[in-house]
Amino acid sequence: MLQDTIAALATPQGVGAIGVIRLSGQEAIAITDRVFKGKNLQKQASHTIHYGHIVEGEKILDEVMVSLFRSPKSFTTEDVVEISCHGSQFIAEQILQVLIKQGARAARPGEFTLRAFMNGRIDLTQAEAVADLIASDSAASHDIAINQMRGGFAHDLKNLRQQLIDYAALIELELDFGEEDVEFANRDKLLHLIAEVQAKLTQLIHSFKLGNVIKHGVNTVIAGRPNAGKSTLLNALLNEDRAIVSDIPGTTRDTIEEVINIQGIQFRFIDTAGIRNTEDVIEKKGVEKTLEKLKQSAVYIYLFDVNSLTPEELHNDIQELNLLGFRGIICGNKIDRAGWKQTAPFYKVLEAHQASEQHPELLFISADTHFNLPLLRQKLYALVTDNEPISGRSVLVTNIRHYEALIKSSEALSRAAHGLQQQQGGELVAFDLRDALQHLGSITGEVSNEEVLGSIFSRFCIGK
Amino acid sequence: MLQDTIAALATPQGVGAIGVIRLSGQEAIAITDRVFKGKNLQKQASHTIHYGHIVEGEKILDEVMVSLFRSPKSFTTEDVVEISCHGSQFIAEQILQVLIKQGARAARPGEFTLRAFMNGRIDLTQAEAVADLIASDSAASHDIAINQMRGGFAHDLKNLRQQLIDYAALIELELDFGEEDVEFANRDKLLHLIAEVQAKLTQLIHSFKLGNVIKHGVNTVIAGRPNAGKSTLLNALLNEDRAIVSDIPGTTRDTIEEVINIQGIQFRFIDTAGIRNTEDVIEKKGVEKTLEKLKQSAVYIYLFDVNSLTPEELHNDIQELNLLGFRGIICGNKIDRAGWKQTAPFYKVLEAHQASEQHPELLFISADTHFNLPLLRQKLYALVTDNEPISGRSVLVTNIRHYEALIKSSEALSRAAHGLQQQQGGELVAFDLRDALQHLGSITGEVSNEEVLGSIFSRFCIGK
Repeated sequence: MLQDTIAALATPQGVGAIGVIRLSGQEAIAITDRVFKGKNLQKQASHTIHYGHIVEGEKILDEVMVSLFRSPKSFTTEDVVEISCHGSQFIAEQILQVLIKQGARAARPGEFTLRAFMNGRIDLTQAEAVADLIASDSAASHDIAINQMRGGFAHDLKNLRQQLIDYAALIELELDFGEEDVEFANRDKLLHLIAEVQAKLTQLIHSFKLGNVIKHGVNTVIAGRPNAGKSTLLNALLNEDRAIVSDIPGTTRDTIEEVINIQGIQFRFIDTAGIRNTEDVIEKKGVEKTLEKLKQSAVYIYLFDVNSLTPEELHNDIQELNLLGFRGIICGNKIDRAGWKQTAPFYKVLEAHQASEQHPELLFISADTHFNLPLLRQKLYALVTDNEPISGRSVLVTNIRHYEALIKSSEALSRAAHGLQQQQGGELVAFDLRDALQHLGSITGEVSNEEVLGSIFSRFCIGK
Repeated sequence: MLQDTIAALATPQGVGAIGVIRLSGQEAIAITDRVFKGKNLQKQASHTIHYGHIVEGEKILDEVMVSLFRSPKSFTTEDVVEISCHGSQFIAEQILQVLIKQGARAARPGEFTLRAFMNGRIDLTQAEAVADLIASDSAASHDIAINQMRGGFAHDLKNLRQQLIDYAALIELELDFGEEDVEFANRDKLLHLIAEVQAKLTQLIHSFKLGNVIKHGVNTVIAGRPNAGKSTLLNALLNEDRAIVSDIPGTTRDTIEEVINIQGIQFRFIDTAGIRNTEDVIEKKGVEKTLEKLKQSAVYIYLFDVNSLTPEELHNDIQELNLLGFRGIICGNKIDRAGWKQTAPFYKVLEAHQASEQHPELLFISADTHFNLPLLRQKLYALVTDNEPISGRSVLVTNIRHYEALIKSSEALSRAAHGLQQQQGGELVAFDLRDALQHLGSITGEVSNEEVLGSIFSRFCIGK
């Protein structure tokens, strides 16, 4: 398959000033040369651009610029040609057809990136990052994808994996000696290495929840009793945000209807019905529904009216909604109509919960006057990022395939460590180590199979 | 305005493998260099490509390839840089923003092409052809645009215009000599030149009707009495065409619902109600409506059933519908159910009209069995192209602005010629010549004004 020369439109479909058709493969330059009227492309140096015409027989199809990238200094490491033509679908199709007539094959989705991977220019996490990068629509997801494309955590993993491979080889060597009681692999040092790898894996596994919400946005529930001001708050946050985003071209009101963007992270707001009115059946239903939405969300804002809720009721709601079990912020609203003295009893309620691991913060705001809304945004951001700037994080797993492989690898390492501590035979330890290595290797593609590759690259767009 | 360095996304909006951002102007290379991490771009040669990163401070925005085109060897003749980035809207916007921060200005629609025109690299007809080329969606309109982009009829016009300018100058020189009866400009030679220019203009003006239908498609009316088989014919033509176009990606059934494509020309079919049933009021209405549609169409197919229409009725319909006044084909349908002997009287009817300038052809077909449909397509094509292959035609006016200027120029030349023949004074002849020159010059942009340029280039897409 890698012997073929592939061709595809690399720019988005539609009308624009220019379109770019990309070819990759041994025949890329020769095929282009056969339909190109201008200099002899085969005699030109790499990384040069040539003006001319794409022709079909005597007929001129378009005036183009041809860029040459000679192997191995190209995206795929093969010879690559990029033909920059006028940006109409019709012209791109015409040119693709003559290239195919001359021996190129229409590329399948992701096939250029697949070749870059198969030819060893990038690893699998970098290939996946290319797709993430193209799909990224927020600063945070963009930064993560760029980071991953440049190596990300893959480099560390490869390093640790190589050390594990060395140990696994030593243990397997011991097995070759059968009954002789030799020990090439130092058990203490191996346990130490496993602990080091485990620490790294745990850190990465832990980062997935955050990585995932950054990549896919953060579901944020606004809960509270009726008339706490939930809609007013939502509108206030949205309006502020609209004013911010309105000068970015291409942003339409529709798509941000219930999403606010805080320093590049998208918070998707889910409104809830008020959780109770009276002591009847509706109350229980409201609580149940709110609990369900809290479970589906990454963070919450619990909103109350400082002028009407009593501290006892707040205490009650915190318990009934299990607010200590989720990440969120408790907001006392309508502070503009209250005295600061009124806030003291609420602080006391929260103090009682400070022992809890993720005790929520208490913040007083006014959705009406926008008082403290900037602080609320800041706290929401801090909740999902632990207040670190995202671009500074080198270890952030965003891909569920990586996440699952990390977990399986970690489990196998736990079994290996347990076996070593129990002084189990080398066979079992070697088996667990190989299992861990297999899963680690699948992340970067050092170990891969057709099926996994197919599923990864088929999600790419054609031309990538 | 030409001092600015402009920047815009040149590829279509949307998600693809790559996007291209284009800069043009004195500072294009310097501005890019300030946000580019890689080689020093300012030291690199023209027509070379460089790998690196676009950065904002320490932050990497994207991994890119930068192509350099140094003045004057570029599209605009200015320094041009093309940044090939990953194909997401988000990334393109981020990169554009840092370029703008560094001193570039967001380009207005068509501004790159405007600069190519202002800097003398292309004339106005070529600039207009760029827009036509991008918008072209058929082989014929594509060929015309390519032809026009490569110079088209502009070259001939410029040549003739220069000769007229020389005469106009001589006549104006005579005026400077006031009462002395000198004659620098040979009247006979001038009349001869005017006749030559007029012949060219007439040819171009004449070509507009055809150029226009090729560019915008051909309205084609199918007329005939009820049960002549109009719908069957339309379906047969459409079905054949669907089979032909179905393997071209991007062609949807919807857009070709009533359009057939013959050798690159789009025929848009307009069905008409049957033109008559009985001798009552409905008849007149049917005839009137059909006449109206004939007037709106470029060509027609008049269809009749050879088994039910009499030669007298055909003769009658030809006269009532004024079929000799329009371009079209008369088709005897259902020939599969008739004997060939039946066709002789119909040929006689047509022979009676052979003296007419555009007497319609008579063709016998069967919409049911598809007999002679390929010939019908061929004759439709011949009707609008005079049977010449479109790509071989160098003179074809498709632009209404050019058409109007040609007519005004031709009218002014007629006045000048008339004046010369009437031995009018030099002032009047000179005035008419200047008028003609003005209109001729406006076509290629040798004479232009802000308003005209604004209206031409504002229709371009941004980035072109």
